[in-house]
Amino acid sequence: MPVTEQFDAVWSGADIATLRNGRYDIIRDGAIAVRGDRIAWVGPRGALPPADVTAQFDFGGGIITPGLVDCHTHLVFGGNRSHEFEQRLNGVSYAEIAAAGGGILSTVNATRNASEDELMAAAEARLAMLMADGVTCIEIKSGYGLTLESEIKMLRVARRIAQAYPVQVRTTLLAAHALPPEYRGRADDYITLICESWIPEVAALGLADAVDGFCEHLAFSPAQISRVFDAAVLAGLPVKLHAEQLSSLGGSTLAARYGALSADHLEYATDADAHAMAQSGTVAVLLPGACYMLRETQLPPVELFRRHGVALALASDINPGTSPACSLRLMLNMACTLFRMTPEEALAGVTINAARALGLSASIGTLEAGKMADFVHWPVAHPAELAYWLGGQLAGTVIYRGVRRA
Amino acid sequence: MPVTEQFDAVWSGADIATLRNGRYDIIRDGAIAVRGDRIAWVGPRGALPPADVTAQFDFGGGIITPGLVDCHTHLVFGGNRSHEFEQRLNGVSYAEIAAAGGGILSTVNATRNASEDELMAAAEARLAMLMADGVTCIEIKSGYGLTLESEIKMLRVARRIAQAYPVQVRTTLLAAHALPPEYRGRADDYITLICESWIPEVAALGLADAVDGFCEHLAFSPAQISRVFDAAVLAGLPVKLHAEQLSSLGGSTLAARYGALSADHLEYATDADAHAMAQSGTVAVLLPGACYMLRETQLPPVELFRRHGVALALASDINPGTSPACSLRLMLNMACTLFRMTPEEALAGVTINAARALGLSASIGTLEAGKMADFVHWPVAHPAELAYWLGGQLAGTVIYRGVRRA
Ligand SMILES: [Zn+2]
Ligand SMILES: [Zn+2]
Repeated sequence: MPVTEQFDAVWSGADIATLRNGRYDIIRDGAIAVRGDRIAWVGPRGALPPADVTAQFDFGGGIITPGLVDCHTHLVFGGNRSHEFEQRLNGVSYAEIAAAGGGILSTVNATRNASEDELMAAAEARLAMLMADGVTCIEIKSGYGLTLESEIKMLRVARRIAQAYPVQVRTTLLAAHALPPEYRGRADDYITLICESWIPEVAALGLADAVDGFCEHLAFSPAQISRVFDAAVLAGLPVKLHAEQLSSLGGSTLAARYGALSADHLEYATDADAHAMAQSGTVAVLLPGACYMLRETQLPPVELFRRHGVALALASDINPGTSPACSLRLMLNMACTLFRMTPEEALAGVTINAARALGLSASIGTLEAGKMADFVHWPVAHPAELAYWLGGQLAGTVIYRGVRRA
Repeated sequence: MPVTEQFDAVWSGADIATLRNGRYDIIRDGAIAVRGDRIAWVGPRGALPPADVTAQFDFGGGIITPGLVDCHTHLVFGGNRSHEFEQRLNGVSYAEIAAAGGGILSTVNATRNASEDELMAAAEARLAMLMADGVTCIEIKSGYGLTLESEIKMLRVARRIAQAYPVQVRTTLLAAHALPPEYRGRADDYITLICESWIPEVAALGLADAVDGFCEHLAFSPAQISRVFDAAVLAGLPVKLHAEQLSSLGGSTLAARYGALSADHLEYATDADAHAMAQSGTVAVLLPGACYMLRETQLPPVELFRRHGVALALASDINPGTSPACSLRLMLNMACTLFRMTPEEALAGVTINAARALGLSASIGTLEAGKMADFVHWPVAHPAELAYWLGGQLAGTVIYRGVRRA
């Protein structure tokens, strides 16, 4: 008998959106053959090579996409800011809330005061919602500790999540997120501390896969971010940046100059920024949840990024202040509705382009032989429905590295 | 022994937001005692009367709210319009889509061509998402059949849902939703048909609990709607109206004149409309999903309704064109973010005020002795979180008429 292949599992009975080249690239009545944690073969079911197959699964309809990648999150934090959300809607001003210790500093305090176990439990509840939505890979940033000890605590929680759940985790050191209150008026000293002590130490501990910063008037200047990036390069870590969210400071051009994996937010990005990002292959990570929650009227220049050929990714940006978003799929609808991205662009934005934003496009983000067997079965007829249906939990079955989890 | 009460179940270990008088009205460490399908007692756990209790449940934290009421839905329809959604975002114009048979008429065709079983299966998938979000009562409109036979088919599906699921269902005849293509240029004839034949027949069959219409330039005039309402009154059915969504025609004032349960949408409602609605006790049902999807900049005059003391309800408006919304809780966030309602108003809008909009406030909508034992346990610390968290599925446990469903 001409059995030439050995597959652990073959999943079939659905159309497959492979997302190769950032397009749906639909295979009608497709099949995915898995060996170990990898895709061994993908194509039309009728073309499956003769094989010895341990387990056969037939979905009986629906579609399969790559596992979703949430490439920008602040999943780990203490407390939440629902009280401020409510106060604001009852007419309390930002100034009053800030005077009462609110805003990001309330999250910093809650995060510093929380134990690692408490942070883990709170993050797990949010992670469960994202995973139920089909997320198989998530980036998690520090940035609410703003002391070495508490930044490390956040990153340890992120690493624990990777151990405890089938989801793949990438961690990012975001010490340059906000100025800690202890350093008021001494931002350069804080940057020096990050560069000379924290980045080397966190890198030595193997706790961060990348370094990020917040380049904005109310956070850090391009010159300060540049120092952080120099230290990251020295430590062998790739960089990303929160840039051009509230004003145009050229942070994304700076990031591109460092070959950043991504520049994120980008409402105020310019033609020069888009050009620089295209040159360096830096992904534009758009965060529609934050735009929506802030009722931002300055939208990211999607057409500019298209014209320059900058890859567009989308993320939940889950955080307690500006985007308490517990669904990555909802971001597809928001990217289409608010940013006028197409459903196909949106889906590419949470698969292949999100994988690029994490430096993982060689192993995840599309359904192709050799890639990780991370995929989602959806009970819908066409991938455009993933962006179309507003809210609700659509994902049927999620396969992480070849294994279905309940 | 002084056992004076007999309870089938006591649920405790959570704070209870009763929503009495439209406020959170929180009972710390509360308990709900259930007898049959009714709430027998609710109050602080420590004050529970001596009782013989069959089953005790302790949530160990979290909050309990009334079951959510989705008081405006088009849950039953054939097909979906994800393809049009995608076309629009790829630059195809409304005119081109309409010329190709798109828009509401594509849903009418798909609904007419679907069997009752097919409509049921499609509705069930959407219902499952709404129920997972804590919905215990749902209104379902006809309006995509636009023939007597297919309107009846839609209403039969709604009644089947009530039989097959623990959720309470209220049905609404919305024959005056759009002009069927067979009646082009003969809108008055269509209205006559509805008034003289369909309303009496549907009422005789017991298939509708209310009558609704769409009062708008592109649908029916106030004079035509008035005739529909006269026929509803004659048939003993209460009325509601899609009014002031795209322009100000005085539909809501007309509805108020008929003592309508609700007027819905209301972006263009005037001071006179709000005044009339306050006088008649007509609830303002706001539909943030449709506003959001249409990127509507004319927002419903929330402050006007507040000033006049008009009760504000919220609903998913789930429909394939303007609001493919599968989560009622998401509408809380959108009402707060887009309409600047408070989280407390938003929660009242999907409980007590939504119950009012269905004429059911005597039996559901708050947690009080004598009301239906429909309630939801949420794994959050405060009810403001229900509006704060953006997307994701939060509901922990849902109790329908005293019984927990898996
Ligand atoms: Zn961020
Ligand atoms: Zn409607």
